[in-house]
Amino acid sequence: MSQSNKMWGGRFAAGPSEIMQTINASLPVDRRMWREDLAGSRAHAAMLLDQGIVGAEDAAAILAGLDTIEEEFERDGPPSDLALEDIHMAVESRLAELIGPAAGRLHTARSRNDQVATDFRLWVRGACREAAEAIVRLQSVLVARAEEHAETIMPGFTHLQVAQPVTLGHHLLAYVEMLQRDVSRFFAADERAGECPLGAAALAGTGFPIDREATAAALGFERPTGNSLDSVSDRDFALDYLAAAAQCSLHLSRLAEELINWASPPFGFVQLSDQWSTGSSIMPQKRNPDAAELVRGHSGRIVGLFTGLMITMKGLPLAYSKDMQDDKAPTFEAHDLLALSLAALAGSVESAAFKPARMREVAAQGFATATDLADWLVREAGVPFREAHHITGRAVKAAEDAGCDLADLPLETLQAIDARLDSNVYDVLSVEASVNSRTSHGGTAPVRVREQVARWKALLDL
Amino acid sequence: MSQSNKMWGGRFAAGPSEIMQTINASLPVDRRMWREDLAGSRAHAAMLLDQGIVGAEDAAAILAGLDTIEEEFERDGPPSDLALEDIHMAVESRLAELIGPAAGRLHTARSRNDQVATDFRLWVRGACREAAEAIVRLQSVLVARAEEHAETIMPGFTHLQVAQPVTLGHHLLAYVEMLQRDVSRFFAADERAGECPLGAAALAGTGFPIDREATAAALGFERPTGNSLDSVSDRDFALDYLAAAAQCSLHLSRLAEELINWASPPFGFVQLSDQWSTGSSIMPQKRNPDAAELVRGHSGRIVGLFTGLMITMKGLPLAYSKDMQDDKAPTFEAHDLLALSLAALAGSVESAAFKPARMREVAAQGFATATDLADWLVREAGVPFREAHHITGRAVKAAEDAGCDLADLPLETLQAIDARLDSNVYDVLSVEASVNSRTSHGGTAPVRVREQVARWKALLDL
Amino acid sequence: MSQSNKMWGGRFAAGPSEIMQTINASLPVDRRMWREDLAGSRAHAAMLLDQGIVGAEDAAAILAGLDTIEEEFERDGPPSDLALEDIHMAVESRLAELIGPAAGRLHTARSRNDQVATDFRLWVRGACREAAEAIVRLQSVLVARAEEHAETIMPGFTHLQVAQPVTLGHHLLAYVEMLQRDVSRFFAADERAGECPLGAAALAGTGFPIDREATAAALGFERPTGNSLDSVSDRDFALDYLAAAAQCSLHLSRLAEELINWASPPFGFVQLSDQWSTGSSIMPQKRNPDAAELVRGHSGRIVGLFTGLMITMKGLPLAYSKDMQDDKAPTFEAHDLLALSLAALAGSVESAAFKPARMREVAAQGFATATDLADWLVREAGVPFREAHHITGRAVKAAEDAGCDLADLPLETLQAIDARLDSNVYDVLSVEASVNSRTSHGGTAPVRVREQVARWKALLDL
Amino acid sequence: MSQSNKMWGGRFAAGPSEIMQTINASLPVDRRMWREDLAGSRAHAAMLLDQGIVGAEDAAAILAGLDTIEEEFERDGPPSDLALEDIHMAVESRLAELIGPAAGRLHTARSRNDQVATDFRLWVRGACREAAEAIVRLQSVLVARAEEHAETIMPGFTHLQVAQPVTLGHHLLAYVEMLQRDVSRFFAADERAGECPLGAAALAGTGFPIDREATAAALGFERPTGNSLDSVSDRDFALDYLAAAAQCSLHLSRLAEELINWASPPFGFVQLSDQWSTGSSIMPQKRNPDAAELVRGHSGRIVGLFTGLMITMKGLPLAYSKDMQDDKAPTFEAHDLLALSLAALAGSVESAAFKPARMREVAAQGFATATDLADWLVREAGVPFREAHHITGRAVKAAEDAGCDLADLPLETLQAIDARLDSNVYDVLSVEASVNSRTSHGGTAPVRVREQVARWKALLDL
Repeated sequence: MSQSNKMWGGRFAAGPSEIMQTINASLPVDRRMWREDLAGSRAHAAMLLDQGIVGAEDAAAILAGLDTIEEEFERDGPPSDLALEDIHMAVESRLAELIGPAAGRLHTARSRNDQVATDFRLWVRGACREAAEAIVRLQSVLVARAEEHAETIMPGFTHLQVAQPVTLGHHLLAYVEMLQRDVSRFFAADERAGECPLGAAALAGTGFPIDREATAAALGFERPTGNSLDSVSDRDFALDYLAAAAQCSLHLSRLAEELINWASPPFGFVQLSDQWSTGSSIMPQKRNPDAAELVRGHSGRIVGLFTGLMITMKGLPLAYSKDMQDDKAPTFEAHDLLALSLAALAGSVESAAFKPARMREVAAQGFATATDLADWLVREAGVPFREAHHITGRAVKAAEDAGCDLADLPLETLQAIDARLDSNVYDVLSVEASVNSRTSHGGTAPVRVREQVARWKALLDL
Repeated sequence: MSQSNKMWGGRFAAGPSEIMQTINASLPVDRRMWREDLAGSRAHAAMLLDQGIVGAEDAAAILAGLDTIEEEFERDGPPSDLALEDIHMAVESRLAELIGPAAGRLHTARSRNDQVATDFRLWVRGACREAAEAIVRLQSVLVARAEEHAETIMPGFTHLQVAQPVTLGHHLLAYVEMLQRDVSRFFAADERAGECPLGAAALAGTGFPIDREATAAALGFERPTGNSLDSVSDRDFALDYLAAAAQCSLHLSRLAEELINWASPPFGFVQLSDQWSTGSSIMPQKRNPDAAELVRGHSGRIVGLFTGLMITMKGLPLAYSKDMQDDKAPTFEAHDLLALSLAALAGSVESAAFKPARMREVAAQGFATATDLADWLVREAGVPFREAHHITGRAVKAAEDAGCDLADLPLETLQAIDARLDSNVYDVLSVEASVNSRTSHGGTAPVRVREQVARWKALLDL
Repeated sequence: MSQSNKMWGGRFAAGPSEIMQTINASLPVDRRMWREDLAGSRAHAAMLLDQGIVGAEDAAAILAGLDTIEEEFERDGPPSDLALEDIHMAVESRLAELIGPAAGRLHTARSRNDQVATDFRLWVRGACREAAEAIVRLQSVLVARAEEHAETIMPGFTHLQVAQPVTLGHHLLAYVEMLQRDVSRFFAADERAGECPLGAAALAGTGFPIDREATAAALGFERPTGNSLDSVSDRDFALDYLAAAAQCSLHLSRLAEELINWASPPFGFVQLSDQWSTGSSIMPQKRNPDAAELVRGHSGRIVGLFTGLMITMKGLPLAYSKDMQDDKAPTFEAHDLLALSLAALAGSVESAAFKPARMREVAAQGFATATDLADWLVREAGVPFREAHHITGRAVKAAEDAGCDLADLPLETLQAIDARLDSNVYDVLSVEASVNSRTSHGGTAPVRVREQVARWKALLDL
Repeated sequence: MSQSNKMWGGRFAAGPSEIMQTINASLPVDRRMWREDLAGSRAHAAMLLDQGIVGAEDAAAILAGLDTIEEEFERDGPPSDLALEDIHMAVESRLAELIGPAAGRLHTARSRNDQVATDFRLWVRGACREAAEAIVRLQSVLVARAEEHAETIMPGFTHLQVAQPVTLGHHLLAYVEMLQRDVSRFFAADERAGECPLGAAALAGTGFPIDREATAAALGFERPTGNSLDSVSDRDFALDYLAAAAQCSLHLSRLAEELINWASPPFGFVQLSDQWSTGSSIMPQKRNPDAAELVRGHSGRIVGLFTGLMITMKGLPLAYSKDMQDDKAPTFEAHDLLALSLAALAGSVESAAFKPARMREVAAQGFATATDLADWLVREAGVPFREAHHITGRAVKAAEDAGCDLADLPLETLQAIDARLDSNVYDVLSVEASVNSRTSHGGTAPVRVREQVARWKALLDL
């Protein structure tokens, strides 16, 4: 062993068995699932009793022991001793200490393979619901700010160029839509995970007369899984969760990017609150959008963690392979990053001071109502669309040359460009008029924004 | 310009404008969506007519022109000229050639931003359904082979070590379960994509009195999208499709890995057909599992393409950014790789010659019924689970020393290990007995496999 | 077969063998390596002749045949017939048509496994050099623009907040540094790929008395590979290329992001040229930074392609597996995207019209010289750093309250804050003074920028 | 605050500021770099003294204080208090406690931006060297086992089909080649990271007369970085490290896959040691290759972590953005996973019991010397390659029909197939003869394997 000791050197100044223990033990990671492990054991014990596989006395001892363990773990945290290997052994070994050999009966008709699959599913299902709740909180903040700014005009961008005026409320509601799809993904992931693997045993099922419907129901699943080999080799539920988390984090990265842009002095669209930015002792007026930047950065990590688990699962033969132990660390980490991101953006948006005057100023630049002029020509003068575009281009050029906005061009200039333009056209050339006119379903007109706000308030129960 | 020409040199022996045209043009990629583009235009034209935004004569001309274009493209393929930029311009410019200025009216109240979002959604929704159909075909093959091999015994592996005997039918049905989750993902992706962005215009909606419910319905959508900014900046539907494709490809990679392993001479579990393997002129008996290997390789590409689009979408401000033009190439490529993979595995599995004798031989090695012995002790002799394990370990050791299987140990040897073992124990020590005993829901017993086969045949309408 | 035909349906309306041919054939992709394949065959033929393995007459016929093929492919392109399977068979089969059975001698002591490894290495090595050249072109443009703007003041950002004034020249040179690391990566990839696999045969080497040093030298390699199994199963060279391409594309994505930000009206730091942006018929003043956006988008695709090949290579047993055929499509695609990206950014930067006045205006906002004030206190008045920060914070607050810049605060105000502040402090409070003072190595002072420009011009041979 | 408390609910039962603190603080992660932080501070302090920027007394106090902190952290670990935010503040604040206001002078002419870049570079460079050492250890084990098995015959596989016999020594050396490229990548990463960012200050450099050459040299760097903006916004060094780690982990995943395959009963090529596998109480003969499986799984995580950091860096504007704080967690995690993987495989290979008899048995199946027969015809009888293949195919068919190996076919059978086959051909038909004949450079012949072993022993200094 001293040979070995010398050989490994460096950070692994230990014999091989210690390295093996370190690489093999999952307890430092899976101890987080101790509540789920206890729940699974309780459901299993109750079923064993009901089916007459374990006697009443043993079952009572097991259930009492599990209660004691819950109290202990709640109070002191679950153990961390690597020698216990994983949370299942940690519970089982503590149970044996507490109640003696009867503890051994708990493992009848199950195996660590179906046990870990059950625990992890329970955890992931909880994480799905937790994510949905946190998203709804962010949506609630966005809806409240959208209602407040249903008429606040800001530039609508394409290619980060000013394209057409929109309302800030409309812009914020775009994220509510994205987030609703995220909620739908987490719900779908939760639902698809609704089959209980407990009872698949090691891989082949069992000959004991177990009642899988009973354990599934006790643990809140819709039904037991249909194939024992699939039950212990499947990690789709974790990938579904990560896919939902990754897409959600991408939406958050977009909102974060916009907050960062908007808080940048050349934009000046928003001032972030002290609570959600960091300052500088030397420049007290400065507010760095650290929270938003970290949210944007976290999206990279979450996508990477998701990609990592996809890679780990690639090409694994059935049934259980130990590679699959690498499922939990990335899932837990993605969960924590997403939870922080959602909370940080909710706080940032809720407390942000938007700057309507500056937004309107930029919206009015860049001839953002040119499309309105063209649409007027089509609508009021029957000019074909492409010709209307051409006329409008000439008007914009004239305004650019004159150093003024479209709305400031004298009528004679407009009529010199095309005689069909009359004084009514000015009704559509202001940014307010532009915004008010876009009343198509889903459009940016304040009347539509208010409708959408009302719809969301009803949906989100606000 | 000649300066520039010289400067770019090499493969880009062209002036900047040519490079710009090349990087900018999406026609080589998006021409594949010409059917969807025509469908979108038809629905839009019909709605413009119904709403009185375009007159009857113009609308008729437009619809007739679109019919002509369909015939032309069907016959000759859509154009490839880079100068046409994208499929929308290709259609519009051809329409103008065919019907003159009236063509310009088609673009009233829409923009390329909502147009491409609509076309691509339609294409992706079609791809979801196509994938589901191809999966069902593979499931059908698997179910048929599973029925045929409901009683064929093979070794069940964990860690690629022989763990317990299972049936080949049970093993194949594990993939049917995985694939059913894939179907569910494609259906969910299709459903989530069921909102129509047409009418969002460039980003803000429009002032024309359009009927978005009508175009949505005409194109098979459930409803119009609720926010115009989101409508043109959302590519979730492509990511949903890719997420489903990536997970499906990971399942296929596992089946492929197993076919490759099973076809390897040391395993010898399967002989692939000539059609789905490649040979060697020099070793005519040899069959390389090329199809399965390519399926496994393709899973890497599909996951990479999915990751790529997630990255592209990260941090994009609203509304439309040109980065999003990079959505279609990876989606189309993933589609093609997945379609080939599904078809290749269906063909491989359908035509594979499994080798039951070899499978049974390996299943009977490695004391694969040790668990059955332990379970017998628990069940028949009331021995606690952990003690039963210990006794079984001693029996396995005795068999290993004797160079025989557990079922071949003389009764006196067993009784010397533990007196509670009696002659009834031999009933569970054969691989057949082991398999037949695993009758728990989802277990490997042939009776359960036949039940599952029947369930799948009903579900898949076979 | 008609059964099968019916079964596959849809897009794969073909019997299994056609699907197998489609998934199996690499010719549509690897035909791009026809020059490398001919080069490898020539080197191999010449060596076989020199070693007496093939006679003079046969060798002459082979070499003449290869010349003919080169002419044909140069003129007509390499063939696309799927039945030819890959570029090696396409060449070999054409050679057999041209020179008869002697063609068969060319394949002595080689195999497609070492042949494809050689071809692809040659191609990748060429791509490394091509990338380096294209990068140097972009660096040259950046250096030229940096020289032009060595004194142009712009705001230096952290967190996209104005932090300290810098020069535009300095900012542009930051990208020259990044790109130089990219060049170094492509050079390292090229060098690491400098071992020739030809002669490894299928996997085990050969018994023919070949001269691998000779073929390696003829093809520009440093030496032959040292292990035949590794030779045919290694694709590190492609991953090295992709790693370099991915990192380079990330640098380009950052430059692209900045161009997009800078071209956005609220920034107004740059006007992109007509050639490298797209316009709007309706808003002729508008310039969308499409090229930059596509470069940013392409970085996502390139990283995805790289990730994809890493995944494909994961867990492959030795030696050759068909999965590895999926190496070329992502590599070729990444190459094309990178080449376009480099050229597009070079063109965009070269032709961009920077707006120094606007840049200076923003640089002078936000009290960007606060650090200079603090440094002055430390340097000139011996105030400890942290206390200096505190004093500066009070001065910034005073300026903010007065609605003026630091340089505009009257001396009495400053002295009221801290008596150690005297009139000399105004020397450091202008953005010009700030920039000029940062003369540390690598600092933003124009004198340093000019030094760096001179260094780069020497290095890049400009 | 209670309002807020209610709002965040769930896991974030805390007011916004606590969430902000949690998302913002990097101390839990970057405390790992405390040694590097102290080293950087010492070098900086010494330079400030030498340049006269800080007086002798203050410098002495600072250096003494840093010594004390080193002792404290060595003894108690660095602090974890989130309020300290990061390791730089943790050191600075402790220094202030220890030596008072003079501590503030240490931060003259530096900023956290260049400080963290320096610390992290130092850490990454150390990790590069550590990885190289661990790789050399694994190479040493492989070379030792290769020497032991220079003549051990095993089947060489392509497509996991038996292709030609090779030696186990040759096979193991293939991994030594791969690993050598990994070493070269880590060396290149270390070298490319050899520029010191300290002195770049926040982003623009400094006006203090610092000596960046001096601090660079004191910290073991080749030179200072050339551009201050790049210095604080560059994380290429971490990506270079991760790229090397990812590629190395892919090599390890291949070796792991082979160990798993070889340890599978149908293969039976290797028995893993008790130390590097896990057992079963019930099947004492069983050895699960957990270590190898975890190594294979870890490759997925490492590639995912690398991909994640690439994504995080995408599209970040200069100079420092807080997103970049997400650089360390994935890098540290990849380091730990790689270190464990290298050590686990070294231990697994070192202690593995290979099974030469079983390997030879499989190598002799499948007519693995067919290529030798064909080569004999080419070499000895002047038959063109493709015709030789055809003749060989007929011989293989005859052997298959006769149920014997090629070497067991009677001469008359061979001569009936082709009269040019004579009794000398038997010299090449045994697996030993086949292997011995492959003497080309890099070939599998034992004489070549011994040469390569000798070369590696010299290179690795064994």
